[in-house]
Amino acid sequence: MNSQRTVAPAQRDTGTRRKILITGGAGCVGSDLTEALVERGHHVTVLDNLSSGKREHIEPLLGQPRFRFMEADLLDPAALDAAVAGQEMVYHLAANPDIKYVEGEATDKDLRQNTLATYQLLEAMRRHGVTQLAFASTSAVYGIADRLPIAESQPCKPISLYGASKLACEALISAFTHLFGMRSWIFRFANIVGPKVRKNGRTVISDFIDKLRKDPRRLDILGNGRQAKSYLSSSECVAGILHVVEHAGEGLNVYNLGCDDWLTVNRIADMVVKALGLPAVNYHYTGTEGGWPGDVPRFRLDVTAVNRLGWKAQQNSEAAVAGAIRATLRRGSV
Amino acid sequence: MNSQRTVAPAQRDTGTRRKILITGGAGCVGSDLTEALVERGHHVTVLDNLSSGKREHIEPLLGQPRFRFMEADLLDPAALDAAVAGQEMVYHLAANPDIKYVEGEATDKDLRQNTLATYQLLEAMRRHGVTQLAFASTSAVYGIADRLPIAESQPCKPISLYGASKLACEALISAFTHLFGMRSWIFRFANIVGPKVRKNGRTVISDFIDKLRKDPRRLDILGNGRQAKSYLSSSECVAGILHVVEHAGEGLNVYNLGCDDWLTVNRIADMVVKALGLPAVNYHYTGTEGGWPGDVPRFRLDVTAVNRLGWKAQQNSEAAVAGAIRATLRRGSV
Repeated sequence: MNSQRTVAPAQRDTGTRRKILITGGAGCVGSDLTEALVERGHHVTVLDNLSSGKREHIEPLLGQPRFRFMEADLLDPAALDAAVAGQEMVYHLAANPDIKYVEGEATDKDLRQNTLATYQLLEAMRRHGVTQLAFASTSAVYGIADRLPIAESQPCKPISLYGASKLACEALISAFTHLFGMRSWIFRFANIVGPKVRKNGRTVISDFIDKLRKDPRRLDILGNGRQAKSYLSSSECVAGILHVVEHAGEGLNVYNLGCDDWLTVNRIADMVVKALGLPAVNYHYTGTEGGWPGDVPRFRLDVTAVNRLGWKAQQNSEAAVAGAIRATLRRGSV
Repeated sequence: MNSQRTVAPAQRDTGTRRKILITGGAGCVGSDLTEALVERGHHVTVLDNLSSGKREHIEPLLGQPRFRFMEADLLDPAALDAAVAGQEMVYHLAANPDIKYVEGEATDKDLRQNTLATYQLLEAMRRHGVTQLAFASTSAVYGIADRLPIAESQPCKPISLYGASKLACEALISAFTHLFGMRSWIFRFANIVGPKVRKNGRTVISDFIDKLRKDPRRLDILGNGRQAKSYLSSSECVAGILHVVEHAGEGLNVYNLGCDDWLTVNRIADMVVKALGLPAVNYHYTGTEGGWPGDVPRFRLDVTAVNRLGWKAQQNSEAAVAGAIRATLRRGSV
C-alpha cells in the first residue's frame, strides 16, 4: 500500500518545535491529539466550527502561548487561508462525524463537509507550500469486505455516504501527494471510543446508557445484536497516529488503526447492563443485519502493517469499550 | 470485486425497448454507444454540453424518432432533471476527458465536472427512481500499481486529479447502489482510441501525426518513450460495455475493460512514422518517466474478469492503435 517515494520521516520527535494546524481539534480525538502535540512543545492552531466539537474539550489549552483556537469553518476560504498560512504540517480531523444516513436528509452532507472541505484544505496547503498532511479516514471506506480481517490493500466499496466521502478524500490526497510533492498519512480508524465520544445517543455506548436510564428493564438494540466491530480508545488512537507519522516515511502512507479483535453489540449491551448494576433487562432487536442503512455489520481490521511499524494497541476492543463505559458513567450525563 | 446483492441481469437484450439516458453521448465513445443502443431499438436521450463532444458525432441520429438530443450541462439542475425523468437506465460517460493537469490551471476542474456532476446525476436518479447506471471510469484510478497486470481488486492510489475524481465517482456510486437499491456497472477503461478520438493533439496518436506534419524530420516525444499502456478501440469498448451490462448481475459490478497486452510510446511513434511514409525521423525525448505530471507510465490491465463473463477484445493494443492511425489519417485533419 505504501508506495511512491521513499523519504526520511521528518516528523520524528527530536524536540523540534513545529507549527501545526489541527482541523477538528475540538473534537473527541482532535482535542486529545491537540493536547499531546502542545505537550510535545509544538505550536498548535486548532480550526474547528464547533458543529460537533466542543469548546470545553480545548478549554484547558486556551490562553497557553503555543496554542491558538480559531472558531471557523473549513469551507470559509478566508479563515482556512489564515489557518493554513505558515504551518509546517496539518492534522485533518474535521468532518461530519455521523456515519448514519437518515431518510429525508440531504444526500450531499458528507460530500460537502468531508470531500469538498478536504479539497479546499489540500488546495490551501498547495498554495501555501504546506507539504505534510495526516488525515483521519475510516474503516467505513471498505464497505462489506470479501475477507476479514481487512488489510489496507483490499478493495474499497463503501456502502455509506460517509464512507464514500472519506474514500473520495483519500483519492484527492493521493493525487495531491503525487502531483505537488506532499507527504501524507491516511488513517483508517476502527470505531473510536472514549469519555468524550458521546454524540447524544449516536454511539452504541451512550445509546445503551441513555435508553437504560429511561427504562432499566428493556433495551432496544439496532440490528440483530450480532454486529461485530473493532474498537479503539481515543487516547490509543492518538498514540497510534503520532507513532505512524514519526515512523512511516513513504510519500503516501495508508494504515489501518485499531486492535486485532472485535466485539459484538450484544456483548457491549451486557457490559453496559452490568456496569449499571441492573438485574434483568430484556433485549429487543430491530432485526436487520446492520444497525442502520449503510452500517457495515461485521468488520475487523488487519493491523499487521502498523504493528510492523512498531505500534500495537495495548487494549483490545473489550478493554477499550469497558474503559469508555466507565468514563462515560463517571461523567454523569450522557 | 463484484459483490453485495445478486440480482438477475435485467438489461439482457431480449428485444425490449428501454428508455435510456446517455450523458456525454456526443463524445467519442458516447456517440458509438448511442448509435449501438438506437440500433437495438431503445429510446435514447443524449445529454451533452458539447464541451468536448461534437454535434457531428450524433448528426446521423438527429431527427430519428427514438432519439433525443439535449445540449445541456449535467450541473444544470433543471436540464438534468428533465433528462433523467422517466428513464430506465443511465449510461454516464460525460466527464472532463483531459487527464493532464497543467500548472496554473484550477485544481478543481475534475472535482466539479466529474465528481460533483456524478453526484448530481446519482441524486437525480434517486429522486426519479432510476435504478440502473453504467459508468465510464478509468484505469487511472489505480495510479502506480504494485503488480501488473492490474486486477480490479488491487488498491487504488490515483496520481492524477482526473483519476482521483473518477475514484470519488466510483465511491459515490458504490454507496448509492447499496443505500438506494440501485444496480451499477463501473468500467475501468484502458486508453480508448478511434477515429473520433483526436482532442487537438492531446492523445498520443494525434499528437504524433500533428507534430510530424509540421516537421517530418523531428518528433518530440513526451516522457522517455518507454511508457507502455493498454489500448482499446472505441467500437470494442462499446461492445464490451454492452456485454457486461447484459451479463453481470451483481448489485455493484466493477470491470476492467481492455485487452491483455500493452504497447510502448516508441512503438506507436514508429507506427505513425511508417503510416505517414516518412523516411527518417529523429526522436527527441522530454526524458521524464511519465509523459506529464500525473501520467501513469506503465500499466496493463488484468482482464480475466471480463473474459470470464464471455467477452474478450478481438484486437490487441497494436491492432487497435494501427486502426486508429489509419482512420485518423483517412479523415485528413487531426
